[in-house]
Amino acid sequence: MSDKRVSRQKPCHHCKSRSASTPADTSTIHYEKFWLYRHCSSVQQRDRQAQKAGQLFSGLLAMNVVFLGSAFISSMIFNHVAITLADVWILLSILKVLCLCWIIYYLLGTSRQPHAVLYRDSHAGPIWIRGSVLLFGSFSILLNVFQIGYSAILIQCKSGVEIVFPTIEILFICTQAFFLWHHSKDCIQVQHNFTRCGLMLTIATNLLLWLLAVTNDTIHMEIESQLREVEQRFAGNETASCTCPNTTICKIFQKGYILLYPFNTEFCLVCCSVLYVMWKNVGRRISHHHVPHSKPKFKLQGVVFGPLLGAAAVIIGICVFMMYQIQATGSAPDRQVFVMYYSYYIALLPLMSVGAVIGTIIHALEKRELDTLKNPTRSLDVILLMGAALGQIGMSYFSIVALVATDPRDLLNSLILSYSVLLIFQNITQNVFIIDGLHRQPSGAAAEARHPEHAGQHAVPSEPPREEDTMTSSQRRHTEVSPGKEEEMKEEQNHEAYNQRRVSMLELGQEIRKASLSYIHSYSHLSWKRRALREISFFLVLCNIILWVMPTFGAHPVFENGLEKSFYGYSTWFAIVNFGLPLGVFYRMHSVGGLLEVYITA
Amino acid sequence: MSDKRVSRQKPCHHCKSRSASTPADTSTIHYEKFWLYRHCSSVQQRDRQAQKAGQLFSGLLAMNVVFLGSAFISSMIFNHVAITLADVWILLSILKVLCLCWIIYYLLGTSRQPHAVLYRDSHAGPIWIRGSVLLFGSFSILLNVFQIGYSAILIQCKSGVEIVFPTIEILFICTQAFFLWHHSKDCIQVQHNFTRCGLMLTIATNLLLWLLAVTNDTIHMEIESQLREVEQRFAGNETASCTCPNTTICKIFQKGYILLYPFNTEFCLVCCSVLYVMWKNVGRRISHHHVPHSKPKFKLQGVVFGPLLGAAAVIIGICVFMMYQIQATGSAPDRQVFVMYYSYYIALLPLMSVGAVIGTIIHALEKRELDTLKNPTRSLDVILLMGAALGQIGMSYFSIVALVATDPRDLLNSLILSYSVLLIFQNITQNVFIIDGLHRQPSGAAAEARHPEHAGQHAVPSEPPREEDTMTSSQRRHTEVSPGKEEEMKEEQNHEAYNQRRVSMLELGQEIRKASLSYIHSYSHLSWKRRALREISFFLVLCNIILWVMPTFGAHPVFENGLEKSFYGYSTWFAIVNFGLPLGVFYRMHSVGGLLEVYITA
Repeated sequence: MSDKRVSRQKPCHHCKSRSASTPADTSTIHYEKFWLYRHCSSVQQRDRQAQKAGQLFSGLLAMNVVFLGSAFISSMIFNHVAITLADVWILLSILKVLCLCWIIYYLLGTSRQPHAVLYRDSHAGPIWIRGSVLLFGSFSILLNVFQIGYSAILIQCKSGVEIVFPTIEILFICTQAFFLWHHSKDCIQVQHNFTRCGLMLTIATNLLLWLLAVTNDTIHMEIESQLREVEQRFAGNETASCTCPNTTICKIFQKGYILLYPFNTEFCLVCCSVLYVMWKNVGRRISHHHVPHSKPKFKLQGVVFGPLLGAAAVIIGICVFMMYQIQATGSAPDRQVFVMYYSYYIALLPLMSVGAVIGTIIHALEKRELDTLKNPTRSLDVILLMGAALGQIGMSYFSIVALVATDPRDLLNSLILSYSVLLIFQNITQNVFIIDGLHRQPSGAAAEARHPEHAGQHAVPSEPPREEDTMTSSQRRHTEVSPGKEEEMKEEQNHEAYNQRRVSMLELGQEIRKASLSYIHSYSHLSWKRRALREISFFLVLCNIILWVMPTFGAHPVFENGLEKSFYGYSTWFAIVNFGLPLGVFYRMHSVGGLLEVYITA
Repeated sequence: MSDKRVSRQKPCHHCKSRSASTPADTSTIHYEKFWLYRHCSSVQQRDRQAQKAGQLFSGLLAMNVVFLGSAFISSMIFNHVAITLADVWILLSILKVLCLCWIIYYLLGTSRQPHAVLYRDSHAGPIWIRGSVLLFGSFSILLNVFQIGYSAILIQCKSGVEIVFPTIEILFICTQAFFLWHHSKDCIQVQHNFTRCGLMLTIATNLLLWLLAVTNDTIHMEIESQLREVEQRFAGNETASCTCPNTTICKIFQKGYILLYPFNTEFCLVCCSVLYVMWKNVGRRISHHHVPHSKPKFKLQGVVFGPLLGAAAVIIGICVFMMYQIQATGSAPDRQVFVMYYSYYIALLPLMSVGAVIGTIIHALEKRELDTLKNPTRSLDVILLMGAALGQIGMSYFSIVALVATDPRDLLNSLILSYSVLLIFQNITQNVFIIDGLHRQPSGAAAEARHPEHAGQHAVPSEPPREEDTMTSSQRRHTEVSPGKEEEMKEEQNHEAYNQRRVSMLELGQEIRKASLSYIHSYSHLSWKRRALREISFFLVLCNIILWVMPTFGAHPVFENGLEKSFYGYSTWFAIVNFGLPLGVFYRMHSVGGLLEVYITA
């Protein structure tokens, strides 16, 4: 689908066909230059140093913007009088307009220059990440539409700027989503430093939007919990000057705003990660052999237990979530509902951990080659997985210390304690499983890996050999057999290849039939390992989805059970949750992506 | 000095002589193995993957220890009742004893195994960093001795454990300092994973000690400021049960404790960075050509203005610091003293920034080769410089927002505002200057770089060719001439070399005299760039020392001027300073090291 879209664009079509057919001419490569490194001995070295310097300077730009914005947002939180939310919005709008200008310039100027996009990184912007950009982007637009509607109804007590800001936001989201959908794979070869600065500015803006959303989100939680207390005290005594009139439309806007809020934070984080990969890819030259010849596709066949178990976990999880939401949002949350919630987790988490451990063991048993080529997308995935897990793990350790210090023999306390321990264990085992899986060669690509003359890192880019399609596919099928028989199969294959040059078409057909029979035989021999991997990763995908849904839509028992809150004090525990919870949500979403990749390549 | 010590140790002497004379036999190399990666096609690939897996698992161990310890320390801070300082000390003592056991095992077991240390990383643990380990280590021991003495005097109201803990701490510091002094350059080749886990445990323990020291340090600040208020209110009304009796020895212990405290935090950070480099070097195999043939030494010649200007800055700085300390620690800090303090910074920071910018420009003008070899020590240096600068820059941005929002036209406010802006600019320019300087080849090594047959990255390690000493030195002198005349000089040199084979000893002597004359001529031609670089880096070294001394020994105007404190609120600004100040101090110390390296290689 992405290729179809891309080929509609004129300049990209041009370079795609170039990169597919002939190696790029050295005259079309724009080597980077930087004043500091004029005297390097070779062009390549100067290029690499200029790249590093460009990354350093654009990174410094982003750092300064992020620090300035963070200071603004913190000032707003801790000193409402001197710096208001409107000031922060003005700063962010200026940044958004700057980003918009750069994105439009990139779309119309930079990317249409001759030889601008000679290479495309096939690993960058996979379909599931671009899909989530579109999905979260459309939800965020809806959120802003609701906000505009809500402000329009209450126009008598709200200022006009509260309609202007969401409009700029909608423009920004649309343009950015369009830009990321079409250009996330680009390895731009012109205007390196300007593009790097533009990308870094956009990343900084997204990070600040995320920071504002997170602090606002939790402040909103705080206000809600305080309001509840106030309501209990002054029941029926309304004094607020700017409340929603009792019309349905206003209530819908208000509810929709609260419900859609989490998608906005996720949108910012996903955009940041895609933009970061683009930034790493600026000026990158990919040898043509890095492009995988056949990309494995998502197929839902041969898996039974994973989807069944996963679906059961999802259904039970939704029931638990509904009961939790009904009970916990009431005036006084019941102890029972927490016991139910934590019991669900304690039943699910060991299953997930065991699945991940078995998956890791199968990875070790399977004799598949490792993919050790340079791949910025994968490096980022690994870093994001480890980094996002830190939020959850940190929160769990704080819980453990608080619970051990108070009274671990109480039922609810012991439940929370085991929940925290299991959560740490689950996060670590799942990370090891995903990281290990991402570094395996997809079973389709294993064929190429075993023929060093077909793939690898040749110094001089050369044409991939064009053979008969039937020949290539029969070879590829052969190499999918169990590597234990590899040697013997290879000899047989060489013999076949030798024969094939002489035999007639009839004999060729017979050979192919023989080869496919042996393929089916070996597939049924191999399949248990591959099937087990697929079952496990599918099960984990579904589990991670339900574990993502629950905190995203407002189940925050770590805050509502009140145990840690009373131990650490309100504001400290608030700060810890504030840091850990959004990272935990992002972790679940990101694991789903990683596990899908493991599922596809299994 | 280090080499002398090393050669006294038996096993290290053995491997050193091995690595210097003959390339290591492949049979002595212990390739790493890991159960997960049994099926890799090549030994090298399996080794690399096992290395990655070992790093991942030992990193996970450290992460868990650090999180557990942080949760403990935070609990102690926010809930004094449930978790006391004694609990934290017990946890840390257990960790210290584990580390001690591992270090002793490493010293007596691992490092004495056959072929354990085949290679040594010449960049790791330079003399200035090992020297600071010894210096800070001995101050920390003194600190603990004072603490033991103080506790012994007040034994009637203090528990016995307050003497036990400092004793363990002294043992830990001594063993660690000894270990780092002798083994910081090791690239250990046996028991990879056990060594990695031990190193990571030691890093985690040091990080936790640092965290405890930082939080204690600032809490101590807080207590002091609160005490001052209490003193003012109840003057002469002593009610405390456990105060120092009015003996001189007790006062000395108390004062010494407060004065030596900052060195302990620095010691932990320095140990962490050295241990991290050792961890990166576990299992690393270095080709023999990476070892530089001639290491430039620290020489104090040819620099005049840098030391003079720097000494002036240091002397004025000490005066300002003394006046600040006398005034600010009084009952009501005067406005005048803040004006003086900030004026000093505003005068000094632009000078430093201009120096760094000029240095960067000279680096660009100088036609010296870049050193692009893999070097974990340098990568860590760059990361630490950038990371530690973040603390200072973040604090400055918070100050800027607070000051702009309140009243920037006030004299003191505008002074602090320009101080903050200048500080950001100074940090960035200095970082660029140091990073750029660290990546240049030292001018001594430039000679080798221009003769690819002498140095470089040969695939097959071979003996460096042994030539006559006179010949080599004359060649080396020749190649230090200005690169503009390089072509012509080279031709001349070839001609000379041709002649030399035929001419008698008399003529050879004449040639050498001619060569040294041309060397002196070209040195006086070149020297302005190298001299300017040395002047600048020397000046910056002295400036950074004084900027390190002032906050280390207690001048914290960001906290004492009260402007940001009243804007953000006490606890928020406290948290920001708590994060930024120790990083800022570490940044100054680390820049001194980086600048010294730039000075030596210039």
